[in-house]
Amino acid sequence: MVELKAEEIFKEFRQHSVAEFFKKNRQMLGYSGMTRSLVTIVHEYVSNSLDACEEAGILPEIAVRIAETGESRYRLSVGDNGPGIPKNYIGKVLATILAGTKFHRYMQQRGQQGIGGSGCTLFSQITTGKPITATSATGTGRGYSCNISLDTVHNKPVITEYKELDGIQRGLTVEGEFADVKYENSDHGVYEYLRRTALSNPHAQIKLTDPTGQEHVFLRAIDAMPLRPKPIRPHPLGLTVNDLIDFAQVSESRKISSFLVDTFSRFSQDKVGEIGSIAKDVDMAKAPKGMTWGDSEALIKAFKQVKWIAPDATSVIPIGEEQVKVAIKNILNPEFMSVVERKPKVFRGGVPFVVEAAVAYGGNSGRKTDEGYEGNILRFANRVPLLFDSGTCAVTAAAKSMDWKRYNIDIDTQPISVFINVSSVYIPYSGVGKEAISQEDEIVDEIKLAIMEAARGVQRYISGKMQISHETNKYKTIKRYTEQLAKDLADLTGKDKEGIDRQLERLVAKHYPKALAEGGDGEQPGSGEAAAEDGEPGEEE
Amino acid sequence: MVELKAEEIFKEFRQHSVAEFFKKNRQMLGYSGMTRSLVTIVHEYVSNSLDACEEAGILPEIAVRIAETGESRYRLSVGDNGPGIPKNYIGKVLATILAGTKFHRYMQQRGQQGIGGSGCTLFSQITTGKPITATSATGTGRGYSCNISLDTVHNKPVITEYKELDGIQRGLTVEGEFADVKYENSDHGVYEYLRRTALSNPHAQIKLTDPTGQEHVFLRAIDAMPLRPKPIRPHPLGLTVNDLIDFAQVSESRKISSFLVDTFSRFSQDKVGEIGSIAKDVDMAKAPKGMTWGDSEALIKAFKQVKWIAPDATSVIPIGEEQVKVAIKNILNPEFMSVVERKPKVFRGGVPFVVEAAVAYGGNSGRKTDEGYEGNILRFANRVPLLFDSGTCAVTAAAKSMDWKRYNIDIDTQPISVFINVSSVYIPYSGVGKEAISQEDEIVDEIKLAIMEAARGVQRYISGKMQISHETNKYKTIKRYTEQLAKDLADLTGKDKEGIDRQLERLVAKHYPKALAEGGDGEQPGSGEAAAEDGEPGEEE
Repeated sequence: MVELKAEEIFKEFRQHSVAEFFKKNRQMLGYSGMTRSLVTIVHEYVSNSLDACEEAGILPEIAVRIAETGESRYRLSVGDNGPGIPKNYIGKVLATILAGTKFHRYMQQRGQQGIGGSGCTLFSQITTGKPITATSATGTGRGYSCNISLDTVHNKPVITEYKELDGIQRGLTVEGEFADVKYENSDHGVYEYLRRTALSNPHAQIKLTDPTGQEHVFLRAIDAMPLRPKPIRPHPLGLTVNDLIDFAQVSESRKISSFLVDTFSRFSQDKVGEIGSIAKDVDMAKAPKGMTWGDSEALIKAFKQVKWIAPDATSVIPIGEEQVKVAIKNILNPEFMSVVERKPKVFRGGVPFVVEAAVAYGGNSGRKTDEGYEGNILRFANRVPLLFDSGTCAVTAAAKSMDWKRYNIDIDTQPISVFINVSSVYIPYSGVGKEAISQEDEIVDEIKLAIMEAARGVQRYISGKMQISHETNKYKTIKRYTEQLAKDLADLTGKDKEGIDRQLERLVAKHYPKALAEGGDGEQPGSGEAAAEDGEPGEEE
Repeated sequence: MVELKAEEIFKEFRQHSVAEFFKKNRQMLGYSGMTRSLVTIVHEYVSNSLDACEEAGILPEIAVRIAETGESRYRLSVGDNGPGIPKNYIGKVLATILAGTKFHRYMQQRGQQGIGGSGCTLFSQITTGKPITATSATGTGRGYSCNISLDTVHNKPVITEYKELDGIQRGLTVEGEFADVKYENSDHGVYEYLRRTALSNPHAQIKLTDPTGQEHVFLRAIDAMPLRPKPIRPHPLGLTVNDLIDFAQVSESRKISSFLVDTFSRFSQDKVGEIGSIAKDVDMAKAPKGMTWGDSEALIKAFKQVKWIAPDATSVIPIGEEQVKVAIKNILNPEFMSVVERKPKVFRGGVPFVVEAAVAYGGNSGRKTDEGYEGNILRFANRVPLLFDSGTCAVTAAAKSMDWKRYNIDIDTQPISVFINVSSVYIPYSGVGKEAISQEDEIVDEIKLAIMEAARGVQRYISGKMQISHETNKYKTIKRYTEQLAKDLADLTGKDKEGIDRQLERLVAKHYPKALAEGGDGEQPGSGEAAAEDGEPGEEE
């Protein structure tokens, strides 16, 4: 056996840029499969547009155009009415991986990585060799357009054909040509992605021009901006030992005591005293930069031993119960729905998040199959629809671990849609492509509780339907009997048959009011739309 | 509504290192859940050790030690007898993300990213604040040890306590302390990970010292090094337009024609002529550096129109049928197994890969449940066990899409294990944590064919068992009848009853040989171990 020496092996040693890495592993960004790849592009651009509009306080209007230019090859553009991108940032925004305004802010946003937009540029480049074109105006000064490609070796933008332009409206339009992609009308296609985006963003107006030239407009359902989540200071319970040291390193406070009050939420002078009396070995008067691992460990341990006010819920803005109802009614038009907005919870000790759940029954809920129906799950994170990788997602794990039978629901055969939106300042996605939420215990548990609460509402409705159907049958049987009885009594007593019949009917009706409300025709119990309109019995408890 | 200007928003613009990214998103590296996090560390270090030993031509001996040092806190070391790491590379190997010897080579290896080892350093650092310690000797010069941590802002190593040492054996030992981890004896724990590693690496000797101090040794089952996969030149059908330009950019050939022959496999002068006559507009005499996107597109199109010899199979080395049999027998000791090694195939046009499949029945196959058994899937990629994210994996997708009933197999209730190993110069993992294979169509299809082939063998065995059981019942019925008949005939003819009985029995036995082989006791048909010993009827066709 010829042994090779380490020195020879290490002649091969190289270092690579993050752009080179994703060029080789594009499937990790969501570019695997032609349909999914096209959705990924739409997803990245539309999420960026929505974030930008909301940050600037502008009601979003987004236009997506897709045209076929060859086999598995499409030209795609996404335009918005957002704040635009200043010319000196456009290159980095769209052609530098891990650059952006969002990564370091502790704030609820759709994007959180600084990867997506540059990933699209990379994908255009490796499939068609073409740069993408950006056209933008910020409302101050002239607009511009330019072509942008990504120097993958150095993870840097290359800008060509830069032109200043007049008459461009405020906003950003990105246009590119992509191959190895496919437009498909399916549960996992662009149309469905945008339909779900509209579902969770009723304040946005979204227009899709599909490759056949047909226009689909998802109208704005609500003319008000969602509340703007505020960047918050981190909660003491959400910190790791390492986080605390990192914050201390960059702090300009003079003492650890003031550093704690200045940097974290819910930290008062009283709390400093309380913590100091537990972590006795930590010198609270020394400079934060001098904080050791031991200091930090002692402090974090102390944080866990005192009572804290929960994280500020204003940092996390869910869609809102009313908006979810309007949206679900628009899109699924269910026979009945039960909507739940849970209180803010925390995971990893202190990262706040809110779960909203809805269970919808009938109408366009569920998925039609050859045999009838099956339930489906509509997953969202910070209002962004998640269409792929459901198998690893916390939402799927929660829904699957439910004992649906306890709620009289057969998720395999009934027209049921489960809607879940998780809102947080930080969504722990399981992958760079952001298609699934990592199965953190606290998140899975909370989603399950939310689904259970919503399912209870639907259970009562379904039980009601079953009871109505049961009463209707009894009512019909007894009515047949009373008709005969009225006739017999009339014969026997010589009294008026109609009069006896009416009396008997009143008697029966008193006992089966629901059957009577249904008209007693007993075919199928009514549609129950009233229930869907006027709310959720599920919320009474 | 107060609108915010782009210029204000972009004050927040920042660029981040890839180390900062993974520090924030550690779950993407496999650090989610305490049990999984510990397995991830073991997985990264052991894969690196196996790769290093094999590259150097050394039969691997690996020692894993895990000791509990606090609540959810463990000290872990992995030592090997490999080639070691030269001191000037140790920092970058263990504390620079995206650096290594493997990323750029077109060669079958366990590691392929240059992330794993540095990810462990990062995880130690963010959970305990401690550096990891490396001790190594390469066999030339003195050995050394040092502490290594990762400067995440600059993605650079920080080395402290460097010492040269004598008397250190050749190899590498990495030791670190990690919190937020847990040692658990489960299907997803370290012991099971190493058990499966031994299953797919019978040439390696692996020792685990668990937190109770108990030693588990997975003995080397085969005393020969696996064939060494060779780095190969890429196959023309595996190239994208962009790949071809990238290769052309760094080529030192004078002309495109010689560049093609020098750079790619299966490219002869004849092929250059053939391609040239299709891609008429490409000037084959011009310098490769001058290749345009149009040139490359025309060439790639032409590549698809001519016939090519398949990619060189020597670049992909599967475990091997005999080794798989030995390994499965050692670990599952099944009643029966059917093992299949498929021929090399390609995905994405030209990346070669080989699938090995085994279906094992009985013994320790499957997973015990409260009600009995259920089938399980043992997934491997380049001999590395994949324990997590099965929901998104190509192997799971293939196994789930099988119509098991057609093979008389009830995967939900029978003691069945499906073993799959995918070997390739490039495994398209779905995530950075490398726990699932992306569902590329060609890979899913090929895995399915492999499982089907193996399942046919098991089907015949199970059918045989059912047939035996059927014959045994018939035999018993007829035997009851012949006993009476012999008695009656003896009475009738006055002849010897025993003689008639023996004659009748011989007659019956001729028709039901299997039942007789089973002894005709008809309880449960025999264990069929012979079948497992002497091979697989499944391979006859």
